[in-house]
Amino acid sequence: MTSPTPLEVYPITGLPEVLPGDDLTAHLVTALRRGELPPRDGDVLVVAQKVVSKSENARVELKTIEPTPFARQWAETWDRDPRAVELVLRESKRIVRMARGLIVCETHHGFVCANAGLDQSNTGKGEVALLLPRDPDRSARTLREGLRKAFAADVAVIVADTFGRPWRVGLTQVALGVAGLVPVEDFIDKLDNDGRRLHMTTIAQADQLACAADLVCGKLKRVPAALIRNYDGPRGEGSGQELLRDPNLDLFR
Amino acid sequence: MTSPTPLEVYPITGLPEVLPGDDLTAHLVTALRRGELPPRDGDVLVVAQKVVSKSENARVELKTIEPTPFARQWAETWDRDPRAVELVLRESKRIVRMARGLIVCETHHGFVCANAGLDQSNTGKGEVALLLPRDPDRSARTLREGLRKAFAADVAVIVADTFGRPWRVGLTQVALGVAGLVPVEDFIDKLDNDGRRLHMTTIAQADQLACAADLVCGKLKRVPAALIRNYDGPRGEGSGQELLRDPNLDLFR
Repeated sequence: MTSPTPLEVYPITGLPEVLPGDDLTAHLVTALRRGELPPRDGDVLVVAQKVVSKSENARVELKTIEPTPFARQWAETWDRDPRAVELVLRESKRIVRMARGLIVCETHHGFVCANAGLDQSNTGKGEVALLLPRDPDRSARTLREGLRKAFAADVAVIVADTFGRPWRVGLTQVALGVAGLVPVEDFIDKLDNDGRRLHMTTIAQADQLACAADLVCGKLKRVPAALIRNYDGPRGEGSGQELLRDPNLDLFR
Repeated sequence: MTSPTPLEVYPITGLPEVLPGDDLTAHLVTALRRGELPPRDGDVLVVAQKVVSKSENARVELKTIEPTPFARQWAETWDRDPRAVELVLRESKRIVRMARGLIVCETHHGFVCANAGLDQSNTGKGEVALLLPRDPDRSARTLREGLRKAFAADVAVIVADTFGRPWRVGLTQVALGVAGLVPVEDFIDKLDNDGRRLHMTTIAQADQLACAADLVCGKLKRVPAALIRNYDGPRGEGSGQELLRDPNLDLFR
């Protein structure tokens, strides 16, 4: 028996610093060509939200934000920048928890995360906050189209971000936007190996793919993207919205 | 520029059905040898909780369980097996939520998950529930020692299970037990590329490694383990307990 084919996760190196309004697809295509890593049909590209937001100009200069009294009071209590707090509130449709200086909210997209996903690290000099992409699925579709044109290959794309979670220490990656794969694989109606039904087993494959990509990206290596090869999960149009739990079925509203 | 070295995730195929009391290390060593996949220094082996629990006889015959009135009443309301409900309560030190037939609890180890991690799928014919391993870190250390003896290689080991999470659809893998790697990588005091401090960025690498492994394992392929090669994260003794959030710092008790 020979060694089985592994799933492979390639860091995409050599990307330049992405500047506001840059053509991210072009940067990625150049880096993939220079890295001798032309994508193939079935590959999955995972891209960090940060470079997507930069390329889409999803950024706000804090000096343009006038905080409300509510934001000011919270910021003063917890030693935060009141303009950043105000921006978090504007990016939210619901506050899930406010405690110990932390705001866990549901964004207008429906993502539940700390500070509405606002990002003030690695955003360039100056007082600028990066927002989440307005429509991460559209961002993923745009990248997928660009890769198809450049390489004549059908590549799935995930736009990923780093979220915390209750009960467990440490952040993990989640898929915000998805194009070209089924993000949640459903085992509910299949039989297990003993012929018994598997109840309620749905696996968040897009989040797991994003986690796998992060293992080669890292926070400080300037590797904001990875290419995954030999993933054999189901394909389809897909959407990051499929990963959002129906609020009526959520025990942790 | 040549193509960068990828992270590789190998399914470990050809394992027999693991029976109660089996020597899991011996099964894995045989499968790794037959698959021409001898582990190397620095590799990470991820093993599903299910086969660890089977090999450790962490199983209970439901006919031996006498349900309390509380368990009976819940089981009747939600059409559950009262003996399984009773077992969930016995495996728990705290109930986090009980609603819609679902019991989210904190196990005696400190893991927060549905039904105390009880597993009634793929557990063999008969009315048997698999429990989580009593001490998943010890399970991981035992496997690590066995691999060291068989292959003269220092391999990190993760015992992984499939947990749900609030807000998002689908389950993902988490690390219950860890040996030979640092499960949570800490970026708090490093500077980002603009010289600004990164606040509170700790990454749950062991959980992300477990997710990567699951991409080649799947629920129905009888592949309960995977070998990850070229992961360059920090090494150390490690423990799955490091992944459990201090209850005093948890907003979702």
